[in-house]
Amino acid sequence: MSKSKTKVGIVGATGYTGVALIELLLKHPEVQIDLLTSEQYKGKAFAEVYSAFRCSPIGSKKCEASTAKNLSRCDVIFYATPNGIAHKTAPKLIKEGVKVVDLSADYRFRNLNTYEEWYGFKKGERKDRKLNDEAIYGLVELKRDEIKAKVDKGLKLIGNPGCYTTASILALAPILNQHASYVRKEAFCDLKSIIIDAKSGVSGAGRKGDVALSYNEVNDSIKPYNLAGAHRHTPELEAFFSEYLYKESNGNVDEDIKLSFSPHLVPMTRGILATCYINIDPGTKMTDAKLKSLYTDFYGKGTKGEKFVEVLDKGVYPQTKWTIGTNNVLIHVDYDQRLNRAIITAAMDNLIKGAAGQAIQNMNLLLELPEETGLELSPQVP
Amino acid sequence: MSKSKTKVGIVGATGYTGVALIELLLKHPEVQIDLLTSEQYKGKAFAEVYSAFRCSPIGSKKCEASTAKNLSRCDVIFYATPNGIAHKTAPKLIKEGVKVVDLSADYRFRNLNTYEEWYGFKKGERKDRKLNDEAIYGLVELKRDEIKAKVDKGLKLIGNPGCYTTASILALAPILNQHASYVRKEAFCDLKSIIIDAKSGVSGAGRKGDVALSYNEVNDSIKPYNLAGAHRHTPELEAFFSEYLYKESNGNVDEDIKLSFSPHLVPMTRGILATCYINIDPGTKMTDAKLKSLYTDFYGKGTKGEKFVEVLDKGVYPQTKWTIGTNNVLIHVDYDQRLNRAIITAAMDNLIKGAAGQAIQNMNLLLELPEETGLELSPQVP
Amino acid sequence: MSKSKTKVGIVGATGYTGVALIELLLKHPEVQIDLLTSEQYKGKAFAEVYSAFRCSPIGSKKCEASTAKNLSRCDVIFYATPNGIAHKTAPKLIKEGVKVVDLSADYRFRNLNTYEEWYGFKKGERKDRKLNDEAIYGLVELKRDEIKAKVDKGLKLIGNPGCYTTASILALAPILNQHASYVRKEAFCDLKSIIIDAKSGVSGAGRKGDVALSYNEVNDSIKPYNLAGAHRHTPELEAFFSEYLYKESNGNVDEDIKLSFSPHLVPMTRGILATCYINIDPGTKMTDAKLKSLYTDFYGKGTKGEKFVEVLDKGVYPQTKWTIGTNNVLIHVDYDQRLNRAIITAAMDNLIKGAAGQAIQNMNLLLELPEETGLELSPQVP
Amino acid sequence: MSKSKTKVGIVGATGYTGVALIELLLKHPEVQIDLLTSEQYKGKAFAEVYSAFRCSPIGSKKCEASTAKNLSRCDVIFYATPNGIAHKTAPKLIKEGVKVVDLSADYRFRNLNTYEEWYGFKKGERKDRKLNDEAIYGLVELKRDEIKAKVDKGLKLIGNPGCYTTASILALAPILNQHASYVRKEAFCDLKSIIIDAKSGVSGAGRKGDVALSYNEVNDSIKPYNLAGAHRHTPELEAFFSEYLYKESNGNVDEDIKLSFSPHLVPMTRGILATCYINIDPGTKMTDAKLKSLYTDFYGKGTKGEKFVEVLDKGVYPQTKWTIGTNNVLIHVDYDQRLNRAIITAAMDNLIKGAAGQAIQNMNLLLELPEETGLELSPQVP
Repeated sequence: MSKSKTKVGIVGATGYTGVALIELLLKHPEVQIDLLTSEQYKGKAFAEVYSAFRCSPIGSKKCEASTAKNLSRCDVIFYATPNGIAHKTAPKLIKEGVKVVDLSADYRFRNLNTYEEWYGFKKGERKDRKLNDEAIYGLVELKRDEIKAKVDKGLKLIGNPGCYTTASILALAPILNQHASYVRKEAFCDLKSIIIDAKSGVSGAGRKGDVALSYNEVNDSIKPYNLAGAHRHTPELEAFFSEYLYKESNGNVDEDIKLSFSPHLVPMTRGILATCYINIDPGTKMTDAKLKSLYTDFYGKGTKGEKFVEVLDKGVYPQTKWTIGTNNVLIHVDYDQRLNRAIITAAMDNLIKGAAGQAIQNMNLLLELPEETGLELSPQVP
Repeated sequence: MSKSKTKVGIVGATGYTGVALIELLLKHPEVQIDLLTSEQYKGKAFAEVYSAFRCSPIGSKKCEASTAKNLSRCDVIFYATPNGIAHKTAPKLIKEGVKVVDLSADYRFRNLNTYEEWYGFKKGERKDRKLNDEAIYGLVELKRDEIKAKVDKGLKLIGNPGCYTTASILALAPILNQHASYVRKEAFCDLKSIIIDAKSGVSGAGRKGDVALSYNEVNDSIKPYNLAGAHRHTPELEAFFSEYLYKESNGNVDEDIKLSFSPHLVPMTRGILATCYINIDPGTKMTDAKLKSLYTDFYGKGTKGEKFVEVLDKGVYPQTKWTIGTNNVLIHVDYDQRLNRAIITAAMDNLIKGAAGQAIQNMNLLLELPEETGLELSPQVP
Repeated sequence: MSKSKTKVGIVGATGYTGVALIELLLKHPEVQIDLLTSEQYKGKAFAEVYSAFRCSPIGSKKCEASTAKNLSRCDVIFYATPNGIAHKTAPKLIKEGVKVVDLSADYRFRNLNTYEEWYGFKKGERKDRKLNDEAIYGLVELKRDEIKAKVDKGLKLIGNPGCYTTASILALAPILNQHASYVRKEAFCDLKSIIIDAKSGVSGAGRKGDVALSYNEVNDSIKPYNLAGAHRHTPELEAFFSEYLYKESNGNVDEDIKLSFSPHLVPMTRGILATCYINIDPGTKMTDAKLKSLYTDFYGKGTKGEKFVEVLDKGVYPQTKWTIGTNNVLIHVDYDQRLNRAIITAAMDNLIKGAAGQAIQNMNLLLELPEETGLELSPQVP
Repeated sequence: MSKSKTKVGIVGATGYTGVALIELLLKHPEVQIDLLTSEQYKGKAFAEVYSAFRCSPIGSKKCEASTAKNLSRCDVIFYATPNGIAHKTAPKLIKEGVKVVDLSADYRFRNLNTYEEWYGFKKGERKDRKLNDEAIYGLVELKRDEIKAKVDKGLKLIGNPGCYTTASILALAPILNQHASYVRKEAFCDLKSIIIDAKSGVSGAGRKGDVALSYNEVNDSIKPYNLAGAHRHTPELEAFFSEYLYKESNGNVDEDIKLSFSPHLVPMTRGILATCYINIDPGTKMTDAKLKSLYTDFYGKGTKGEKFVEVLDKGVYPQTKWTIGTNNVLIHVDYDQRLNRAIITAAMDNLIKGAAGQAIQNMNLLLELPEETGLELSPQVP
């Protein structure tokens, strides 16, 4: 019955990640959408902002300005806001027992110095350090056990990963994990050789009236931007991988990962493709088949495996279109023996697995629901 | 439990309407997909044809060649085939008690002469005339009562309407219906003035390796085709409207409707927009507001109204994007008083309301399920 | 030699019609670009605004604010500005002997009341009535003789037609012309039956940072807008056709044409397609072949015919892509004998024949150069 | 006068590179198109194949089957054919004094073993070894002096580079050239670290009726293909770079370059973007500014520099759209000091600089015309 459903609120409901959350939460059997906030559209019915929802029951729901009171009435709050908003109100909500999934960058960094440096804050400006320490980076496939253990002990706050970072991390994790287990004996891969050449659809830039994002300027054209470490997902990736290697190796791999992350804007609405390069130690005598086994072992197969990660057969390269509308990540691995280099390609829907879908995976963990609840989505072809 | 679910089969499962059916049926709570047939891909797992389904349980299901035996094992068969296939095997299935929704044109025409003329048959070649007489044209919103009454009496076969025709009929029905009720006194509209200028995405042409449908030729360009009565949806529209007016007027309007139907190919994957023109009798003293009332009265409002038809507010013109992934039709009405002309625009997803979604509406009626079962779909924005 | 070249200036050089003018004028053998004005980008080199021109000699040219002085130093001024700008400075320039082609709407209307009503002016606000009376509407194919005659008598000002109007007028002119010659005896067509269903690429909306024009909202979607007489090109079309019929019939056809003009936004950068409907008197015994002859006679054939208008063979429907990068208009005619209705489709590049190309045709006439100078452009395929 | 113009023929005139050649040659002041061959469309007027050319004088020219006789009547022959055609007839033409630019791969490899292995020939099958030895790989900016010297001695055959290879080579040449000059002392870069992540529009795949190239499958999606050395442009790049380093270092750098080349299919018609990675020796104390100087020194500036290569300012990343319709290559350089890695991005029009434009540069050299004749093209914005 509806009265027993979990009440969720979406702060920043009229941005693209907000809408993506609404689309998915409407299909979620255990929750009801109780609150939509929008500073820009407060007082308007949701369907006045997005006419696509004129036939949907949610269409008539009014957007409200975000207040301490309306946030508190929810069981779960999603922040689908620009960076720098969530940390202002999340601490109070957490104290009141509200569970929070933040889709902005506010709780992605355990080291707040990095956050402050990259997100335009003065050093030491963020005051919620204790809460930030407790938060978890919600890359579910790699952090599931840690999240579950902390939920048992009262965890209420998850920092949802960025879109580019999700695809990149899932593409490289099996190799780095292997490296962590190898390290006492010998190297498995060359950590200095990581290059992530990533391609994103335009929705990743959000809903904006900006000439550079206008149809005329974007259509029929590709461009790179913020190369050579200038994109904010670079420190997010580096922080994650450094920490991951340290933990998985029980402290044996203790180095600051530095890598090349190169984003490109592609003329398509949704989707991310990450093409990842890393050199493997020739001593491993790596092959295509062995690399594929490493990946299928890591992510598992069939019903025992990860629900949302699929390692494709040799030669079946992932297309972003195959993932749109789903929470899936499709991965292909190549090993170039001439160069001792692994090339891993990963495709996903930037607004689902890269934002709203993963956020709901995280909510499910916070609510101790089966992780795939509400996320068994069919692709839309063509 | 799964054993009590209705078993459905899809003949021609690897075309775009076949895939669209699969996407929707996977979300339908009362059915299970029991059979996928494909002559081209028999023996292959569905995900080998559509890699997008590699993460889906249906992905491992094998496509079979269509046989008398495997069709018979289903409770419901959908024909998602080219024209001219369904009528060969449907009669036997119907006799065996299988329910059939045919998405091809085979059962759309009560007058088989018209069918034979337009679909490349010799006169009298179709032998299933009795069965064809019993079939219904499944434009649900206008034929619901008739379908339900016939289902009570054992109806098992529905001819699912074409994509262009569905949008066009729903756009014009309220005016024609009013005309039918007016006719004893005076004219409501000028039946000779109907023009439907329709625009379709490329998926309407099916999955083909054809230079004219290649990305390079279609991208960034619009073109008309088959104007001036040359498109097969012209006779379908004319037959429907003629019959509809006759019935709704209790025989008072008895004329062969002739109209202009002008299809255009638009560089987008999915979606149809129909821009419809019809002159209204000046004596009606029509206005924008009165025309809108005519439409909202016809289709109803809110929970009492049609679930899948929405009349938009003045000035909120329908965009095809707003309907993609749903079974919805969005309609806007304009009345140009200077010219006594109504201009109605209607948008929908050609593969859902224009094909698979409406087919499932029809299946629900055949199975006496609530019509919207499995069809309460969220739009995907952006 | 360069010193003898005509010096041209472009007011509003950084909008899309400004850039289109630059692209074409760079290929024009008789002119040199002397002045680029931009209020927004004054002081910047042109290639700083449009990086595409980094390899071009024009790239280093500085944009200037528009002043009385710099405008006067040119032989020809093009206004590629928003509406309401040109009429403020053009009168003085004309007095000084500068020739002017205005691509905005300021000099398209002989009846300034219509202009003032549609373009947000108070009645009587425009003071340049005498100059406006002298200006000509530069739809070259139909006004060539009049323009040439007036140039002989000192004409210096041409109002360049709108994009939608150019395609629509050229599509319908042969039929209306025939009507004008018929009128003493009988009707040729039904002037009340004109419907123009037009489809435009996004560049027609200009270079703007507007959510409604952003890639995410426009891509993969079509929408109508400003139907039922609400678009400013409606009065432009109606004024032109009324005047044209009056003149061509020597005053015998004296009526205010009213028509339906329905614009649609299509997901493509450039291009306009106009699908035009008009009923022909059954007494004419019209056929497809006779209608085609009417058009080929009107526009001429081969080297004797119009350089930029081509009537395509039956069944070869015009695609906008075929015209991009050229000043060409491709026209197809259909006659539906069942309905006595002509359906004419016309495609062209909205920024060339619909703006900059036609403006240069007009400039060539003002300069008494061969009309096609600088405009013999190859299409770009694919 | 026309009689003195060079007569050119295009073998394979109806493919996309054939059409691109025609578009450009029509603007070339020193040549006339004498012959269009097409096996598929022989006997048809060119405009029957490409309706876009209905207004163009070339439109009425008939396509002919290729014969020894009609090829011989030309002064210059372009092969715009699939691989494996040119080498069958070029040797005879060369003997007869015809100049040849081959846009296929037939004359790109000095080592015919590599060609035979990658292009489906048996070892030793190609018999024109002597002619092949004499041919030059026409990457003009790097081979100009060699081409000119050989033209003086009678060179008649140029193998035009592939599209991906042109962008990639021009992106990396300045660094490799510097390496060649450094090598006696120390390393400048790590030749084993080269990664080229390239993105192409769909026209690169040619004009084909192939489901995988259909609009529905390509639109709104990006995919990788043929990674890890499987694409034919990999050996072309490796052969070129190996030879280039050997020559530029006077034999000091003598190694077989092996690199990662990763092509991706992007939903756009034209354009290639190459994102290139190479590690620089930390001892060079490289910076962004020094790297940019290396490039501007190599390619020169302004009128003294390369006409078709432009090094963009820091932060102005090349967009493929900026190059469409031109022979230009736009390059941006980044240096990531944290990783000692140069990241060079290069954009161009795959059908012009990547095919027809460069072929005309090469023809101009063969004809001893100024290299930029007919190639000073304006971009088309937007």
